[in-house]
Amino acid sequence: MKNTIFVLNDDAPKYKQIYEQFKLYIENGNISVNEQLPSIRQLADSLSVSRNTTLNAYEQLLAEGYIRSDGRKGYFVNELDPLLYQSVKMPTKNEKKELKNVRIDFRAGTVDQQHFPLKTWRRVTNQVLTMHHSYQYGDPFGEECLREQIAAYLFQSRGLKTNANNIIISSGTQPMLINLGKLLRENFSSFIVEDPGYVGAREALKFHDFTLETVPVCETGTDFSTLNQKESRLIYVTPSHQSPIGVSMSIQERLKLINWASVRQGYIIEDDYDSEFRYTQQPFPALASIDSTRVIYFGNFSKSFLPGIRISYMVLPDSLINQYKKQFYLFESPASLHNQLAMAKFMKDGEWNRHLKRMRLVYKQKMNYIVSELKSHFKQTITIIGEQSGLFVLVKLHLNRTEEWLINRASLYGVVVYPTSIYTLENHMNEPTIKLGFSNLTCEEIQLGVHLLKEAWS
Amino acid sequence: MKNTIFVLNDDAPKYKQIYEQFKLYIENGNISVNEQLPSIRQLADSLSVSRNTTLNAYEQLLAEGYIRSDGRKGYFVNELDPLLYQSVKMPTKNEKKELKNVRIDFRAGTVDQQHFPLKTWRRVTNQVLTMHHSYQYGDPFGEECLREQIAAYLFQSRGLKTNANNIIISSGTQPMLINLGKLLRENFSSFIVEDPGYVGAREALKFHDFTLETVPVCETGTDFSTLNQKESRLIYVTPSHQSPIGVSMSIQERLKLINWASVRQGYIIEDDYDSEFRYTQQPFPALASIDSTRVIYFGNFSKSFLPGIRISYMVLPDSLINQYKKQFYLFESPASLHNQLAMAKFMKDGEWNRHLKRMRLVYKQKMNYIVSELKSHFKQTITIIGEQSGLFVLVKLHLNRTEEWLINRASLYGVVVYPTSIYTLENHMNEPTIKLGFSNLTCEEIQLGVHLLKEAWS
Repeated sequence: MKNTIFVLNDDAPKYKQIYEQFKLYIENGNISVNEQLPSIRQLADSLSVSRNTTLNAYEQLLAEGYIRSDGRKGYFVNELDPLLYQSVKMPTKNEKKELKNVRIDFRAGTVDQQHFPLKTWRRVTNQVLTMHHSYQYGDPFGEECLREQIAAYLFQSRGLKTNANNIIISSGTQPMLINLGKLLRENFSSFIVEDPGYVGAREALKFHDFTLETVPVCETGTDFSTLNQKESRLIYVTPSHQSPIGVSMSIQERLKLINWASVRQGYIIEDDYDSEFRYTQQPFPALASIDSTRVIYFGNFSKSFLPGIRISYMVLPDSLINQYKKQFYLFESPASLHNQLAMAKFMKDGEWNRHLKRMRLVYKQKMNYIVSELKSHFKQTITIIGEQSGLFVLVKLHLNRTEEWLINRASLYGVVVYPTSIYTLENHMNEPTIKLGFSNLTCEEIQLGVHLLKEAWS
Repeated sequence: MKNTIFVLNDDAPKYKQIYEQFKLYIENGNISVNEQLPSIRQLADSLSVSRNTTLNAYEQLLAEGYIRSDGRKGYFVNELDPLLYQSVKMPTKNEKKELKNVRIDFRAGTVDQQHFPLKTWRRVTNQVLTMHHSYQYGDPFGEECLREQIAAYLFQSRGLKTNANNIIISSGTQPMLINLGKLLRENFSSFIVEDPGYVGAREALKFHDFTLETVPVCETGTDFSTLNQKESRLIYVTPSHQSPIGVSMSIQERLKLINWASVRQGYIIEDDYDSEFRYTQQPFPALASIDSTRVIYFGNFSKSFLPGIRISYMVLPDSLINQYKKQFYLFESPASLHNQLAMAKFMKDGEWNRHLKRMRLVYKQKMNYIVSELKSHFKQTITIIGEQSGLFVLVKLHLNRTEEWLINRASLYGVVVYPTSIYTLENHMNEPTIKLGFSNLTCEEIQLGVHLLKEAWS
């Protein structure tokens, strides 16, 4: 204790400085175990601080166990185990990402900012924060008011007859696959996925070590001819708008699939991630509207509203819903309560249907625009795939170039375009195919982007 | 085809009614396979609708695969597999929950609504929606701007030296345990948990079939004496404010635990779920501030801000962070992008520290109030546990009654109180102990509640 020096400055509360310095001395052994500390009064006098200050410092040390109070005798240092291993990492600066000179980014997975219903959404989110319920934990399976709205919407728009009790709200396709996968893994060990197909779903299925089998998809549809030779009794599909090829499953394929699941006593996961935006016809009825006993329906608000809102939902057949609720009733919902309540109100007020109607027109115009620009610039040297629906289009290039070359060349011209080879497991395309998202680009930007691509790829 | 009758009404678009009726006739076999449909013109004339209407109906049937177009010859019905199994469930009404006559609900897990910074939060959330980035997908590991704010906050308030790169943002303690559990399960098969302890964490650990061992917790602290006899090399603890007992771990216990993890080459998960609210002293430094190589730090905004915001974070040691990012880089973040951006701005503007300072006073006042009310009504017949911190208090009752009796009697008087037995695996309390949350009750409500409890339990 004799060699300890207290230096107090004005940067922090005095009691805190005293506490910190005592702590350091005790940890470093400058003050020995069982040694008595100066009394509150002595210390206060010697440091010219109030007794309250030294009392506060001692009480913090006392509460954390560094010292003990021995009644009237005073304060004594407690024993500490020496630290066997210590490595304190100093904060390091993050490396800044190199900024590229990007002029046009054909990134999929964004939504149109210009036509977002900013005022209405602000109004409902602000209202939600005045509700008593907004200051509690929500329902583990999602807010009932939102589940009711989703049930009504699915019936009206997708022909799916269900009710709030069979709907589970989550915060994305992957969290749903992870939870559902836990349940399915008890009776199933493998999954059929589309090839090419959504990588995020495959990753979530691998989380539970499902073996993956594939069915090939090409521009004319999914090839289900080998379905009966597969071992799996589970399949994950995107029937309304295959990701990424963009085809829609015909009624023949749909019935074949449902009959397969019935015979095999398996399940189909129907991921209906962007069915709202079909331009040439009405959205096709959901697979789950044909048979709700074998189809697990997945939907979300990422493409149709905001990717960052992180609200998704699944409709479970009766055979799974109780088992699911039993497994997860002690889990909190991962979806923001306030976003859920706001979306429920937005739907109830009719704003959701208005929004979809408006966005369908906006995106249809953009799709028509990009397709006509591509056709007029590239003519016979490209094939356009998936122009009937969705927020992106695929372009197959007959230029005898690699996908890598196409992406790198585009980048030199300030245009970011995206590969499709990453979606493929075995069923490789015969020619490189590029993915162009356009949802948050203006027609001028689309025009400039396609123009630059023409130059880059010439 | 001869027996088919079309009846059109004004309830829906005419093309849609035609499409629906054709679909039904084809599905039911009223129209045979390969039968030719009337031409667009014939049908339009016979139904007195425009040709555009019949064209639209046929195009929808065509797109879905019900019919095919055979060039100039016209439209023909395609073959459909008969459905092997069909069961369409009709929507059912949800059973309404019985409304009880609740006067006072001592529910934990709510936050104070009256002092919530409504205006400021509205301002930042509204600002966030004008950002271009709000219309895209976010960073899989959480927004960098928020991770930077959290790193700065953890250093300032919890003594934890880390940086944005080691922080992962998620949507709750359970999703973090599920993801992290996937990683840890490769090298570890069991976990030590506190008994009594947080049920939600146990459920999330069971998700990966971890075997659970326990260390007993009582009013004087956690008993680590048997730690070295355990098989596990992983432990989940709540050192700042044990859930539910309310004790804080002393520095001796902390060092013992860290040395155990170093020797065993294991990991400690430190769930610091409500350390912000310590009333008698400053919050204790985090375990992770002593050794960041063996401690995985968990924090969240549920108690300190809003339970429904669903933003949590973990600080991973260098030994785990790269492995984690490799495993999950193809997963989307489950946390709302807009909530993340708003919270980052709220913290950057200094509003977060102001909020914590204000709420610490508000909750301290409520804690003091409930404790003094309980003491004045119940005197020696109760022991109060965990009054130094947090948003609830435990009351051990020396009344020779069961927990069930206490809860039921309270309910008769319109007061909802909560059990603690549910947190226990083996280490049962010798007397029934009731959990009283007070965060969103006014002092008047607390007074009335305690008064009613006194009547109920007399």
